[in-house]
Amino acid sequence: MEEKIKNALQEIQRGCAEIIDMEAIEKLVRNFYEKGENFYVKAGFDPTAPDLHLGHTVLIRKLATFQKFGGIVQFLIGDFTATIGDPTGKSETRKVLSSEQVLDNAETYKEQVFKILDPEKTKVMFNSDWLGKLGTAGIINLASNLTVARMLERDDFSKRYSSNTPIAVSEFIYPLLQGYDSVAMHTDIEMGGTDQKFNLLMGRTLQKAYDCKKQQAVLMTPLLEGLDGIQKMSKSLGNYVGVTDAANDMFGKLLSISDELMWKYYELLSKKSLKEILQLQEGVKDGSLHPKKVKEELAMEIVDTYHSKGAGELAKAEFEKIFAKKDIPSDIEEFEFEAGIWICQALVDAKLVNSTSQARRDIKAGAVKINQEKTTDEKLNLKSGEFILQKGKKNFAKITIK
Amino acid sequence: MEEKIKNALQEIQRGCAEIIDMEAIEKLVRNFYEKGENFYVKAGFDPTAPDLHLGHTVLIRKLATFQKFGGIVQFLIGDFTATIGDPTGKSETRKVLSSEQVLDNAETYKEQVFKILDPEKTKVMFNSDWLGKLGTAGIINLASNLTVARMLERDDFSKRYSSNTPIAVSEFIYPLLQGYDSVAMHTDIEMGGTDQKFNLLMGRTLQKAYDCKKQQAVLMTPLLEGLDGIQKMSKSLGNYVGVTDAANDMFGKLLSISDELMWKYYELLSKKSLKEILQLQEGVKDGSLHPKKVKEELAMEIVDTYHSKGAGELAKAEFEKIFAKKDIPSDIEEFEFEAGIWICQALVDAKLVNSTSQARRDIKAGAVKINQEKTTDEKLNLKSGEFILQKGKKNFAKITIK
Repeated sequence: MEEKIKNALQEIQRGCAEIIDMEAIEKLVRNFYEKGENFYVKAGFDPTAPDLHLGHTVLIRKLATFQKFGGIVQFLIGDFTATIGDPTGKSETRKVLSSEQVLDNAETYKEQVFKILDPEKTKVMFNSDWLGKLGTAGIINLASNLTVARMLERDDFSKRYSSNTPIAVSEFIYPLLQGYDSVAMHTDIEMGGTDQKFNLLMGRTLQKAYDCKKQQAVLMTPLLEGLDGIQKMSKSLGNYVGVTDAANDMFGKLLSISDELMWKYYELLSKKSLKEILQLQEGVKDGSLHPKKVKEELAMEIVDTYHSKGAGELAKAEFEKIFAKKDIPSDIEEFEFEAGIWICQALVDAKLVNSTSQARRDIKAGAVKINQEKTTDEKLNLKSGEFILQKGKKNFAKITIK
Repeated sequence: MEEKIKNALQEIQRGCAEIIDMEAIEKLVRNFYEKGENFYVKAGFDPTAPDLHLGHTVLIRKLATFQKFGGIVQFLIGDFTATIGDPTGKSETRKVLSSEQVLDNAETYKEQVFKILDPEKTKVMFNSDWLGKLGTAGIINLASNLTVARMLERDDFSKRYSSNTPIAVSEFIYPLLQGYDSVAMHTDIEMGGTDQKFNLLMGRTLQKAYDCKKQQAVLMTPLLEGLDGIQKMSKSLGNYVGVTDAANDMFGKLLSISDELMWKYYELLSKKSLKEILQLQEGVKDGSLHPKKVKEELAMEIVDTYHSKGAGELAKAEFEKIFAKKDIPSDIEEFEFEAGIWICQALVDAKLVNSTSQARRDIKAGAVKINQEKTTDEKLNLKSGEFILQKGKKNFAKITIK
């Protein structure tokens, strides 16, 4: 029993950036093993953007870990503020969602996260269910629990205040609402990224203010670096692997990461135990394993997770068919273009031809290949993704379309 | 017509500390004279303290002035925040009122203000009628209209913030609610003390944010000095004349003010026109009028207002009977004591006797008078008010009990 608890806690702590009140977490896990009692683990999700990438799955995988040790996941869709209209009509950037859109997005979330989470141990919740009921008096009482000074300590507020960037008074209310969610949900542990620390702690503060029996523990996952290994994975930076990406894209993108980043991804994204990962590292070190082999294994595991068992193997075969077996030099020049770029323009910009009219002639002549396949469509506009452009036998360019 | 409008505007501006958007006020008054259209003049009152003193009547008299020129007074009882409970039970100082208490206090207000205001042109309003309906979403939208920086410009917030005195986030909501009252009430002019400037302007800001047709003008009355002529009139400082004070007390208190303060009181508290007041001033200057006479006239007018016509005359007669006709020296020493002080202690502290046992003997011997009346109760505790204490024929002290 003690061994099981120890292992559980080790797995919970794996890869975490920071944990507040580990003692409370230990108590919850012990309680599960000793008495079979469950506990609630909350994580909040943006109802306007139900497209997940691997960066998000670090946290979702950790939620799944908790499910193995007694955790019931509170998958919170923070729909309340997104459904608030703006009576003054001034805020054009505020995206307002209808209830139908919220439910649609929730379905999209479910499709994605139930590839990792156990649906039987997951409660999908909507904070409009309780925040709407707070009312004028409830909000004022809520706001009486925190001082302006404390709020201005939040990193981004503090920076904006000192640089005279306007902060609306309403922005002080949002962290309070997030904290109140934990009160209403009787949350035992809240998870989030390190950038959410202030808001996560708000749940503890408010559970105390509202005389809840317990204060939630807080577990923060690190931000996952994107494929570039430098900036955090994000859709807008283009350095991401989407959970709904095609199997081949997923595989190809993951093979492009550095060896160093690969170990990070193993720690945060793989089902393999820490012991197994250590064995892989030793194999690479003593030369018995080729790092590319290890990277392929990771890529296959991830493809399997988000597609189906065996999809990783197929993607690997496909990848090898296209890239590995043909004569593409390993040091070809790389370019980045905007989505929708015209194939002829791309050929010019990638320095494969001198003019778009030349490009047109080359395409007609069958001298242009995209990912090793001849193209004959001289009007083609390129979509997002990574491609190898080729003119003739020896001129290559790797292009990324955002 | 032009003459009437000019006079109206002059009377409106009389004694004001500051007016924002006098043009709008002129338009409203002109509109009343030309088309008979009314307009709304709002003033807010604290539902927890329905006891008014002359300091409050400066503003109420100005409301009455507007009623003469087309104004419908919106007598707003700010009951909403007073009826909010505190679920955390932490704020012991927050006085929570029941709906019955609010209505009781409203009746008390009416009894007092309808001695000045025309009930036919007065709407007593309660902001709980619309603030409760705002709800969670309404409050957040409301709070989106102002920045934290702007809020921290408010004098008291700014001082508290820089001196690290806690400001609860909820305190940022209250001025917004006051401003929203003006939106909900379609207020044309809001009145308040100079210390309310920030909150009064909030009404303008929010009427603009909520796309109201007009933005309210703001008219600020000065703080009235108390009887001491130095600090503002306030109950806690004891330098006040309550609207419900007994006629004799009112008269006596008003006769105690300095000649200089008397002219201020004339400007702010008297029905006399500015022209009449000027005549009085000239009379005093050229010696044809004794200042005491002029002070008595003011005191009588005020007593008449809050009691009944003729009550001032009676109070004057009573006052003269007690003080003026007996041999009380005009330069007797003055003392201030706490309410409930024991008569014997008061005699010692006022230096009329050397010990409380001596005081006891003097009372038994019938040598002690309070307001010229012999007292025989050696256990007496003195209540609030002003008294002349006398021992024997020649020893006097004027005492004020707070």
